[in-house]
Amino acid sequence: MLVVMRHGAPAADVERVVAVIEEMGYGAHPMPGAQRTAVGIVGNDGRVDAGRIEALPSVVRIIHVTQPYKQVSREWRDEPTIVTIAPGVSFGGREVPIIAGPCSVESEAQIIRAAEIARDAGASALRGGAFKPRSSPYSFQGLGLEGLRMLVRAREETGMPIVTEAMDDEGARLVAEHADCIQIGARNMQNYSLLKTVGRLDRPVLLKRGMAATISDLLLSAEYILSEGNGNVILCERGVRTFDPAVRNMFDLTAIPLVHGLSHLPIVADPSHGTGLRDMVMPMARAAVAAGADGILVEMHPEPDRALSDGAQSLYPAQFVALMQELRGVASAIGRSLPAPRNN
Amino acid sequence: MLVVMRHGAPAADVERVVAVIEEMGYGAHPMPGAQRTAVGIVGNDGRVDAGRIEALPSVVRIIHVTQPYKQVSREWRDEPTIVTIAPGVSFGGREVPIIAGPCSVESEAQIIRAAEIARDAGASALRGGAFKPRSSPYSFQGLGLEGLRMLVRAREETGMPIVTEAMDDEGARLVAEHADCIQIGARNMQNYSLLKTVGRLDRPVLLKRGMAATISDLLLSAEYILSEGNGNVILCERGVRTFDPAVRNMFDLTAIPLVHGLSHLPIVADPSHGTGLRDMVMPMARAAVAAGADGILVEMHPEPDRALSDGAQSLYPAQFVALMQELRGVASAIGRSLPAPRNN
Amino acid sequence: MLVVMRHGAPAADVERVVAVIEEMGYGAHPMPGAQRTAVGIVGNDGRVDAGRIEALPSVVRIIHVTQPYKQVSREWRDEPTIVTIAPGVSFGGREVPIIAGPCSVESEAQIIRAAEIARDAGASALRGGAFKPRSSPYSFQGLGLEGLRMLVRAREETGMPIVTEAMDDEGARLVAEHADCIQIGARNMQNYSLLKTVGRLDRPVLLKRGMAATISDLLLSAEYILSEGNGNVILCERGVRTFDPAVRNMFDLTAIPLVHGLSHLPIVADPSHGTGLRDMVMPMARAAVAAGADGILVEMHPEPDRALSDGAQSLYPAQFVALMQELRGVASAIGRSLPAPRNN
Amino acid sequence: MLVVMRHGAPAADVERVVAVIEEMGYGAHPMPGAQRTAVGIVGNDGRVDAGRIEALPSVVRIIHVTQPYKQVSREWRDEPTIVTIAPGVSFGGREVPIIAGPCSVESEAQIIRAAEIARDAGASALRGGAFKPRSSPYSFQGLGLEGLRMLVRAREETGMPIVTEAMDDEGARLVAEHADCIQIGARNMQNYSLLKTVGRLDRPVLLKRGMAATISDLLLSAEYILSEGNGNVILCERGVRTFDPAVRNMFDLTAIPLVHGLSHLPIVADPSHGTGLRDMVMPMARAAVAAGADGILVEMHPEPDRALSDGAQSLYPAQFVALMQELRGVASAIGRSLPAPRNN
Repeated sequence: MLVVMRHGAPAADVERVVAVIEEMGYGAHPMPGAQRTAVGIVGNDGRVDAGRIEALPSVVRIIHVTQPYKQVSREWRDEPTIVTIAPGVSFGGREVPIIAGPCSVESEAQIIRAAEIARDAGASALRGGAFKPRSSPYSFQGLGLEGLRMLVRAREETGMPIVTEAMDDEGARLVAEHADCIQIGARNMQNYSLLKTVGRLDRPVLLKRGMAATISDLLLSAEYILSEGNGNVILCERGVRTFDPAVRNMFDLTAIPLVHGLSHLPIVADPSHGTGLRDMVMPMARAAVAAGADGILVEMHPEPDRALSDGAQSLYPAQFVALMQELRGVASAIGRSLPAPRNN
Repeated sequence: MLVVMRHGAPAADVERVVAVIEEMGYGAHPMPGAQRTAVGIVGNDGRVDAGRIEALPSVVRIIHVTQPYKQVSREWRDEPTIVTIAPGVSFGGREVPIIAGPCSVESEAQIIRAAEIARDAGASALRGGAFKPRSSPYSFQGLGLEGLRMLVRAREETGMPIVTEAMDDEGARLVAEHADCIQIGARNMQNYSLLKTVGRLDRPVLLKRGMAATISDLLLSAEYILSEGNGNVILCERGVRTFDPAVRNMFDLTAIPLVHGLSHLPIVADPSHGTGLRDMVMPMARAAVAAGADGILVEMHPEPDRALSDGAQSLYPAQFVALMQELRGVASAIGRSLPAPRNN
Repeated sequence: MLVVMRHGAPAADVERVVAVIEEMGYGAHPMPGAQRTAVGIVGNDGRVDAGRIEALPSVVRIIHVTQPYKQVSREWRDEPTIVTIAPGVSFGGREVPIIAGPCSVESEAQIIRAAEIARDAGASALRGGAFKPRSSPYSFQGLGLEGLRMLVRAREETGMPIVTEAMDDEGARLVAEHADCIQIGARNMQNYSLLKTVGRLDRPVLLKRGMAATISDLLLSAEYILSEGNGNVILCERGVRTFDPAVRNMFDLTAIPLVHGLSHLPIVADPSHGTGLRDMVMPMARAAVAAGADGILVEMHPEPDRALSDGAQSLYPAQFVALMQELRGVASAIGRSLPAPRNN
Repeated sequence: MLVVMRHGAPAADVERVVAVIEEMGYGAHPMPGAQRTAVGIVGNDGRVDAGRIEALPSVVRIIHVTQPYKQVSREWRDEPTIVTIAPGVSFGGREVPIIAGPCSVESEAQIIRAAEIARDAGASALRGGAFKPRSSPYSFQGLGLEGLRMLVRAREETGMPIVTEAMDDEGARLVAEHADCIQIGARNMQNYSLLKTVGRLDRPVLLKRGMAATISDLLLSAEYILSEGNGNVILCERGVRTFDPAVRNMFDLTAIPLVHGLSHLPIVADPSHGTGLRDMVMPMARAAVAAGADGILVEMHPEPDRALSDGAQSLYPAQFVALMQELRGVASAIGRSLPAPRNN
């Protein structure tokens, strides 16, 4: 950590900064420059609370040299973490599993049909929301526990493991009981109470990046889960909010190699929310695999025209089959592969 | 609502859109243009789920003419809502109350001292966090219930009503029991479970704008609270995230007249989080009052150098006294006023 | 175009809007809704100046249904435009040419060496700046005309066509005289005087997206060039500015399929500026090809450690050779190919 | 400047960084930390080109402690610069002059009428565009030289000095010849050729902030003008582009106290472009004065309904008169004042 002092800061102010750093138990290392003095903090473990120092006279700003997260970092653990959500369905290795399904569970018939289409095309897991976070209180909010039970029926029929979202503590416990992987949505990425709850559950967690979250914020939110004891976290890029109304979100694929450089956790990409437009899903899913994504989360609906939510970004079944074919080619071109199709 | 069709859309596709709209119970109003056809939806109440229509062939996009929120809108209720958090402390009328105090409750002595300074300078309410949402799990997380009890002690000593944050259901119930106004922080602005919970409690709610929330998002989140029966909502602008690292957030004061145009709810501004820099707090608090804010939320600490959080953006007591003086002048210049100081 | 009226707008205001629209020579189509009235404008050619109508009483906003650009749109010309900058080097067809070279021309030896490495690895064109737009007036500003002459020498030696930036009218004429393609940089994307100048020159133009330009802005800037008579425009995605300091820019690959949907012009991608970090260039170049880019612009320097500008994002020669191999695989997986290497 | 090395960087890499820094003529100051090593660069003048160092092995990033600009900084010149555009019209002192007028010069009658209204209400200068940068080549582009002559006629009639935009070198010379202050628009803020041109002219320059420019970028662009010898630069906040479609731009008033802290140059604010909505102009102009703006630039049109551009954000004459009254009150509340009205 580096404390930058105001140009022309009096010696007494520099000394006070040094004194406070030493009082906090660290070493202080003043560096007088041609224009400004800076004071380095050494011997810290990356968790110094900068508040006290920032508030001192003549301090202009604090520069953090070390990342604020710890257990999620490559420096904590060098080899990649492999997160297995069901036998044969692992994220973070050479294989790139595909998680597909509708935005919302709408009926038992719909979700079983979606699971069959997904499985037959080669997907490894089924997605589908039972608890839906909607911007408007008047939009369809999901089928809740009943929806979870339909997902379980679809798993019984097809063998497909389930990834589904939880929005609060009660929901997290229900999802952990019924599903194979708990999704935390973008809007709850900084709901720290919920992160702590899923950190204490014994289920893998798929953590989506918030709409305006930096990569550092995303990793800090994952740190909340790991610090409670649950190391099975899959990160997910799903687009961030920017100035261009042409698409719902800006899909930030650079997040993938960035996370791979900073963390040992796997990262998947969701081109459906990442773009919000069906025509963009296919090229951007290919791009995500080419960028090194450890998996793809994609919305596919047996009948998008009749979807209760997100119909406009859901693939038609035939498009999904074509996409799977393309993704196999791209994965192969970069030395990876999609998992072999599940047995019927 | 307006459905825009692709250039050269076949007549059959236009007819299908018309048919689906009518099947949903609304009127359809095709408008053939020189370049494209658009289909108007009439007779709707602003709550049509566009998903089904967006998914139809040849549909390019859906344009929402009516706002998606309802009870929070000026069209629902024309006169301003006055939210009273304690006798004599009301937001939304001619008076502009000031809520001041430290970022976190740190000790009984600290919070009582802060309350006294705030009251003596003319503030109307005390802020101070007992439950703290922090980006890092290793930062100070607040004193919890013990902190709430210290706030109650400060109120007993000074008569100052309390505004403090809740982060989850359990916390919301505790805050409702101890404090005068429940704050929902920026990170939880779209935590819909929590919004529903506070919507069922009998306490005013101060709802902060999320880091990347549009004004429409903010109003929709307020709609969640109103739709559960709690109409006492105060909105709060506290800065949004943009590209300039010069400040922690970009303080969007235009939100104030925008909200006043769209909604009957009061809106206050928080220049401490809105800028993140002590030197910016004073000019931006003045600017907020000049823009029409219905109140100001400001961080002030008896000893900012020793604060456990946000020390760098907290005012020194003497600065706060000077700020109150300036705010009185600006309020008066626009025909408003700060409330008379509370009796000791 | 759709004119949305305020809720409860008096009939006289609606009539006035209708009258003004008709006075402007278009048809007006009032649509009374349950909550608001909207007035459609029909028979317009997408170029109505909304200013007069927006200023009328009770008008809330104007919604543009038709895009504001014309000659660049798919609706103007359906088949893709192929832009050929030199014999055998075409953008917009099945082939994906690679343009490589250093940020700046630094010496004749450096640029000839760069051209040889690029050509030998299979690149189709040479990039290198002679006129450099730098944020600081104290940074290296390029070698100017002398740099252009060095580029010409490199072309003589290697046969590689040249793409280089122009920053003003004088520079544009010099670049048109010496090089094969005129680059307009991000900072000048809305320098309309310069766009008109290159629109009157007889050279292909590579137009980079501005730092905060929407896709619509980019297409409108291209429209300036086409409207002056120069139809040989190649668009370029090079990252936009957002909130995450982790990378210099956010590389918006969704721009590629979006542009392909809206326009007949080819679009290439620049992962070097798009990310600003050497380690991100390789995965993001692969992702750009997978997303459908019509070419790649990449910084490669014979000795990045000694570069006068952008060293940190320039590939080492060996990395560039490896990248070319990867790009061939990805292009092939999506049914495209890199051009055959040029003869020595 | 601080060079941050990768965790576990080999000693040889640290030594190489030290060697390169010393070869560049500066002092190197290695700081081994518990987690990483950082190397401080001392004795530099804030203009080190970081490129060479960033490209070295094991270097993670470069942290700039010193600002990249020089002559515009407070550290270069401590007292505020007062820029006088005409006798009695100065920016940067205690007075807050108002510059008002239409977006475009449309006719001699219109601009003279606008000048009279502005003067009679107490404005100090007249604005009005003769050269108009428009996103679309098909929008009204201004009257050019003829427009400049109309502005001169308006000055003759009313005594009001003129502020008007230049878009290229030729235009800059014409504007310098006819007007009192040359405006550089947001789209040309990083048109460095134009900045150098106006830096060599003997006229004050009003430099608008670009749509995605940081404060540091704005100051660097001003540095281009000062470094060519023209120290009479007035900065202008006019809103930046963000994610909220509710307004055309996000008006970043914190820029005002930020610039005052970093630079000696005056800064004015333009609430018309800063918000894009007439109803927002009045509260945001008040807020700008309260935040400490050294002047206000505001669009006012004799007949906004008939404006050829920006009608929707132009004030009606009566609104402008009311605004002037409000601004006098706010300025007075913070110890400043509007200039006395000009004699007729």
